[in-house]
Amino acid sequence: MRSSSRLVTLSTDLGSAYAAQMKGVLYRALPPERVVDLTHDLPRHGIEESAFLVRQMLTAFPPGVVHVVVVDPGVGGARAPIAIRTKDGSYLVGPDNGVLSLAAERLGIAQAVRLDPRRVGAAPRVGRTFDGRDLFAPAAARLALGNRLSTLGPKWKPFSWTPPTALVGPARAEGVILHIDRFGNAITNLPATAIPGRARTLSVKVGGRPARRASNVSVYDELRPRQLGILASSFGTLEVAVREGSAASRLGLTVGEKVTLRWTGASPRAVGGK
Amino acid sequence: MRSSSRLVTLSTDLGSAYAAQMKGVLYRALPPERVVDLTHDLPRHGIEESAFLVRQMLTAFPPGVVHVVVVDPGVGGARAPIAIRTKDGSYLVGPDNGVLSLAAERLGIAQAVRLDPRRVGAAPRVGRTFDGRDLFAPAAARLALGNRLSTLGPKWKPFSWTPPTALVGPARAEGVILHIDRFGNAITNLPATAIPGRARTLSVKVGGRPARRASNVSVYDELRPRQLGILASSFGTLEVAVREGSAASRLGLTVGEKVTLRWTGASPRAVGGK
Amino acid sequence: MRSSSRLVTLSTDLGSAYAAQMKGVLYRALPPERVVDLTHDLPRHGIEESAFLVRQMLTAFPPGVVHVVVVDPGVGGARAPIAIRTKDGSYLVGPDNGVLSLAAERLGIAQAVRLDPRRVGAAPRVGRTFDGRDLFAPAAARLALGNRLSTLGPKWKPFSWTPPTALVGPARAEGVILHIDRFGNAITNLPATAIPGRARTLSVKVGGRPARRASNVSVYDELRPRQLGILASSFGTLEVAVREGSAASRLGLTVGEKVTLRWTGASPRAVGGK
Repeated sequence: MRSSSRLVTLSTDLGSAYAAQMKGVLYRALPPERVVDLTHDLPRHGIEESAFLVRQMLTAFPPGVVHVVVVDPGVGGARAPIAIRTKDGSYLVGPDNGVLSLAAERLGIAQAVRLDPRRVGAAPRVGRTFDGRDLFAPAAARLALGNRLSTLGPKWKPFSWTPPTALVGPARAEGVILHIDRFGNAITNLPATAIPGRARTLSVKVGGRPARRASNVSVYDELRPRQLGILASSFGTLEVAVREGSAASRLGLTVGEKVTLRWTGASPRAVGGK
Repeated sequence: MRSSSRLVTLSTDLGSAYAAQMKGVLYRALPPERVVDLTHDLPRHGIEESAFLVRQMLTAFPPGVVHVVVVDPGVGGARAPIAIRTKDGSYLVGPDNGVLSLAAERLGIAQAVRLDPRRVGAAPRVGRTFDGRDLFAPAAARLALGNRLSTLGPKWKPFSWTPPTALVGPARAEGVILHIDRFGNAITNLPATAIPGRARTLSVKVGGRPARRASNVSVYDELRPRQLGILASSFGTLEVAVREGSAASRLGLTVGEKVTLRWTGASPRAVGGK
Repeated sequence: MRSSSRLVTLSTDLGSAYAAQMKGVLYRALPPERVVDLTHDLPRHGIEESAFLVRQMLTAFPPGVVHVVVVDPGVGGARAPIAIRTKDGSYLVGPDNGVLSLAAERLGIAQAVRLDPRRVGAAPRVGRTFDGRDLFAPAAARLALGNRLSTLGPKWKPFSWTPPTALVGPARAEGVILHIDRFGNAITNLPATAIPGRARTLSVKVGGRPARRASNVSVYDELRPRQLGILASSFGTLEVAVREGSAASRLGLTVGEKVTLRWTGASPRAVGGK
């Protein structure tokens, strides 16, 4: 059983106690060591922010893994439950509400189906509020055991959304905040290459707030404690950070807000926000 | 070693850093892949709420697993450290303060013992404040390795408690809040079948607060954003929810509060709260 | 592959979503069951407090494990990335900022190197803000697979710091708060043996606050609900606790504050804070 089953990862906004029920279901079919938690602390009901985090997490993984993602405020409603085979031979399982979209686009969609509860061995439904346990976990178990995607439901065209586009000019860049991490760093969609290296001091304007000065640095250590800085994040895009402090709470930042950086000159050019 | 050892699960209110010490102890005896975390975020010192969550988690699992549960405000005091063999061949290990009671009752008690520190290979005690590491983890390791329950201590009759009873009538149901989840949904002890399907609008009264209107729905998507609703939770009982919001913070709900639902008529009948 | 690879543990302040990227990197080299999470909730940027927690966690483990620790506010800056082989044949991998120091001292340093990115198979760096994923995870994978420490970089003398010393007298003890746990218990550096067993009532003074009375007890159950107590913690040192409540929020305690206990008499003697 061990050698023939794929690894299953779990990424949810459910907290660990609810997610444990998904693990219980998976352990009925798979050796426990083939199931790993990634996170159960995705932003609650935060589909777009989670989509970025999921893409970031999953692209670190080797191919051939079954990734279950549950951020599902519309559970039981109109959104379809789906599974996707990617071009590298991984699988994505979850609600078709956009939370899988960015990872699917990055990895490439080879095939997708709408999960049919009768064909995935779904548990008898005690409610219609926990597809993670009742539908996605059994579907993931089948895929991990080598069942073909086409046996789990009819073909489906997954929902796709385009992340906001960043505008980059010779002296200005406009983007949005995609994610605020637990340190209060605000990860934007602005490419790390947007700012010329020689621009050491920037103006940062977020939403309707007054512009502030920030240093363009490579690492936190180049900032003074509590100083505001702009640097290349581990996502490959620019982040707004405060050394040994929270940029988010200091500036009152929230996900989705517009960020404008200025250094000199004007006339931005469009850059894909991916 | 691998094939002969049972799976051990850990469910605690300790946070992951304290729980890691339990894992260290277990790894001294078992292959690491035979030890899995369920949650370390059970309600702190919340024995009754945890008992519901533990029952809910553990009943999703296959039989034959050793489940360690540590919510133990009375550690080192009068409550006994115990281990239970259930009728399906699983084991429950933890303090005899009620946190195991609901799972034990659901799975059926085949045998129970009071753990004797000298017979479980307990670690030398540096304090008397962490039986999870010093007593329950070593006991679980022994059970996982196939030691018989009777070798770990004398027979014991576990503490048992009856969860609050729900009253269900033709036009009214009275219960309590058992659990508030991380989305702010309030899970009650009211059976999902309490409300006739035709009752589309309900009155919900919690504690001494004014009654509010709520929709009787099947899934969150049937609610308007921020609307209050009553639906069958993934626990099989009714929950009070707000779409894309927190019912708990909007209504100020806490665990243990009385919930009264009304739709028409009167004269409730008693229904077991299990 | 399985039998020849060591276990890798992960302890970070990164939260689970960032840590998942470290796991993705490790899974490219190791069987997933050889990688386990300890905690991703270490105090954010809290190097000294984390150092105590890490020592406490790691000393519960069997020898021969590769422990990765990431609390790294100075990532990319002057602090060196290092790996240490301990006298029991374990490995410690992380930033040389002190977070490894107490565990290293306890386990004994056999050999240490500064990690050379080119020699650990470091991932191409998209930023310089996530050595956990880009440097420490690949280094840990190499060690887990049996590579010799000396192949990963040049010799290094790790940074070492001495935890604050406790003063213990016949009627008074002075120490500091090393850690506040999730229950609000304040763990000090005062040895559990500091107070004579016959001293049943103590005076506790923290920082500049007024002294308060506390009971000298062995277990929480000896306290009345909400009563302040001093007892031997699971760390082997004294803790300030409130039964079924949080000593930290009741007294407003923070890590690093000075704690003075008095019972009778005077003239403290020095005791190592380890």
